[in-house]
Amino acid sequence: MSEEKLERTLSSETVNKVGQKVLVKGWVKTRRDHGKLIFLDLRDRSSLIQIVINPHVSEEVYKVAVDIKPEFVVEITGEVKQRPEKLINKNLLTGTVEIEAHKVKIISKAETLPFDMGQETLNLELPTLLDHRSLTLRHPKIQAIFKIQQTIVSSFRDVLKEEDFTEIFVPTLVPIATEGGAEVFPVNYYGHKAYLAQSPQLYKQIMVSIFERVFTVAHAYRAEPSVTTRHLSEYVSMDAEFGFISSWTDLMDMAEKVIISIIKKVSQENKEELNLLGVVLPEITKPIPRLKLKEAQKILFEKTGIDHRSDPDLDPSDEKEICRWAEEQTGAPFVFVTHYPTKKRPFYTMPDRQDPEYTLSFDLLGINEEWVTGGQRINDYDMLLDHIKKWGNSPQNFEIYLQAFRYGMPPEGGFAIGLERITKDILGIANIREASLFPRDMERVDERLSVIDKEEAKAKQ
Amino acid sequence: MSEEKLERTLSSETVNKVGQKVLVKGWVKTRRDHGKLIFLDLRDRSSLIQIVINPHVSEEVYKVAVDIKPEFVVEITGEVKQRPEKLINKNLLTGTVEIEAHKVKIISKAETLPFDMGQETLNLELPTLLDHRSLTLRHPKIQAIFKIQQTIVSSFRDVLKEEDFTEIFVPTLVPIATEGGAEVFPVNYYGHKAYLAQSPQLYKQIMVSIFERVFTVAHAYRAEPSVTTRHLSEYVSMDAEFGFISSWTDLMDMAEKVIISIIKKVSQENKEELNLLGVVLPEITKPIPRLKLKEAQKILFEKTGIDHRSDPDLDPSDEKEICRWAEEQTGAPFVFVTHYPTKKRPFYTMPDRQDPEYTLSFDLLGINEEWVTGGQRINDYDMLLDHIKKWGNSPQNFEIYLQAFRYGMPPEGGFAIGLERITKDILGIANIREASLFPRDMERVDERLSVIDKEEAKAKQ
Repeated sequence: MSEEKLERTLSSETVNKVGQKVLVKGWVKTRRDHGKLIFLDLRDRSSLIQIVINPHVSEEVYKVAVDIKPEFVVEITGEVKQRPEKLINKNLLTGTVEIEAHKVKIISKAETLPFDMGQETLNLELPTLLDHRSLTLRHPKIQAIFKIQQTIVSSFRDVLKEEDFTEIFVPTLVPIATEGGAEVFPVNYYGHKAYLAQSPQLYKQIMVSIFERVFTVAHAYRAEPSVTTRHLSEYVSMDAEFGFISSWTDLMDMAEKVIISIIKKVSQENKEELNLLGVVLPEITKPIPRLKLKEAQKILFEKTGIDHRSDPDLDPSDEKEICRWAEEQTGAPFVFVTHYPTKKRPFYTMPDRQDPEYTLSFDLLGINEEWVTGGQRINDYDMLLDHIKKWGNSPQNFEIYLQAFRYGMPPEGGFAIGLERITKDILGIANIREASLFPRDMERVDERLSVIDKEEAKAKQ
Repeated sequence: MSEEKLERTLSSETVNKVGQKVLVKGWVKTRRDHGKLIFLDLRDRSSLIQIVINPHVSEEVYKVAVDIKPEFVVEITGEVKQRPEKLINKNLLTGTVEIEAHKVKIISKAETLPFDMGQETLNLELPTLLDHRSLTLRHPKIQAIFKIQQTIVSSFRDVLKEEDFTEIFVPTLVPIATEGGAEVFPVNYYGHKAYLAQSPQLYKQIMVSIFERVFTVAHAYRAEPSVTTRHLSEYVSMDAEFGFISSWTDLMDMAEKVIISIIKKVSQENKEELNLLGVVLPEITKPIPRLKLKEAQKILFEKTGIDHRSDPDLDPSDEKEICRWAEEQTGAPFVFVTHYPTKKRPFYTMPDRQDPEYTLSFDLLGINEEWVTGGQRINDYDMLLDHIKKWGNSPQNFEIYLQAFRYGMPPEGGFAIGLERITKDILGIANIREASLFPRDMERVDERLSVIDKEEAKAKQ
């Protein structure tokens, strides 16, 4: 009965316990039968460990183990053994050892899996991957995505805290459509109409007058009536905003610092996950080139012969192409594109005094597409009021926002980074839905909406 | 012109620059006139600094300064001077120095304030405080609340990361009312009905099968049709969940560790803010007492003579009283109350095998009220399915959740801490709205809904 009192050993710790009796707990990742031997790969939060079940060691254990299938939750007591030299698995953290099972206890059973979770890569269509999300997330390569996502967020927070930014928590239930447009989800708010925030923009700006430098990691909502590989209806926005900028280029300097720091931290802290995913992160050469939209369009025209010089924005193929250009110039596919047309940016964007039809705005394009969007904001109350009206909004809907500017606001600006977008691009993921644990789009809220419709129709019959 | 090239000095740095020329930037907190001298208290993100404007030093500067009012944003160039011994302000970080202004530049003007922001404490009624939220948040004592709130959240994250928890980001747009009940906000989701999550509960449970130990700092929404001093319609929930517990008391041990760590970190990192607010934090003696609900009710009956022994829960006055009891016993007003009735807890709560009418659930009461709520969850698929039905829900609405349990789930549980609730209680704030930057309740979404109604009615005429 002495096994009962053993403390749990994590699989990653077994390599230091050769010859010792240990208790491990986890999910059966795979089961292989070799004659009368059963091999289990046991997954816990730290790693995988190979378990060997040998009827010659214990007939009783073998009888229990015969029923074990993938994803069963089990507790195994046994002895850590060094593997023979030729059976060492160099790709596995615990590849030098295995556990000879002396006792096996089934904690929770699993139904037969709808597909083989033991494959090195899950070759499933996206709808299947998402229909079985609670299962497919268990796959090591999918887990790795979200381990890296965690690092991205903490790196964002850490670098800004070092720069004296304060973390804030702002509401997502708002009285108005922040960014204008119809792409907003209405909420029935105690019989009144409220909306889900399209961004924390207005609140982070207000907070500049409180803490000067603020950041927030906030949920944002876009009711985009389209299905693309790079938009989600609910996403995580990493937002920063700060005042007393000496020049609007301070904003790009800060965005550059944040992005470089994120890439660096993921490289350092997620070696194992990057290795598993076969990803080598780009090295960003500082400074990242900065082009006005017009200049970028000229380069693209000269490079491709396709003339987008009078477009108000870059389209997805332009974005790819200009990243390629940047890579040719600097070795890294990163470029700032600045000075977007005033009419195409939200009302709060500061026009360039030298050429007021263009704004002091920027996008940082990374690898293939927009990673960061930002710019200087209008901090003058009268000008802001004027813009709100010109953009077709009613100032009375912006009362709490305008209040901040009525009582003294320094020159300020900031930027936003889409968490799932950057996760996707860093890891070369094809569809942004794979970079969100439980993605929301116009076809799905966990279950497919078409399925829900059918169920409702059936219930009504 | 050499002043133009000066780098900005933060007010807190001036104490080390006596005799030097500096450039400071910030908001005018107060202005005092003494004969022909003007004194300004300038606020920046680091502290306050006193500015002296003397017409004998510069007549030109004086002329500019005459117009300056509170909350103006200004840049001041001048010399840092040691204050005479008897003018030293010991309550101020920069109280040993002041700046003699040589140049003053107005960056942004402010309208005349609706009330005096220079008072040591803002003595305003709550509606006034919130109607002018973008202004009142600038007050040092209100700022201090949110500096402390930042520490609470980072301490929560830090202690759990040390315990090997992974941070996750889960959706707030959900297909079902997580906790049951009618207190949920419906969202028009592309013509379908979705809801705002009442908690991240179901997703964090799913994620136990991926990472074993997870936490999230998530927005949660409760459409409570009541106005109390301790509920918000949108709040921040700090949630943790973990698997492979040996006993359900592991959950209380972890919650205790988190709460003690939060209190400790706030004590260490927010000395200045606590001092400003006149708050001395309680010292928690470990272990925090653990009482079954029945035991707590018996103690309360013996203590007060009021008989609540057949109630299914503690009411607010019971909570206060049992905290007082805990303080008498241990010196700290903290107590775990456990074993709430099965019928009164959500469907996923694990009943106690010894007495299935009661659950393995707990609330940690702190100071006056519930701080943490948690418990062991049902990890057996069949039992969970049965409970979903018994609680009047349809299993097909819980498909993605049930999936996690269909494929192997270890014994697990967790807890949730309301960020604004704990901020309020730690600081002795009377109303939870003051512990939220932009509080949401049934009367207000920034602006009062009654005001919005009037405006709408007017627009229709």
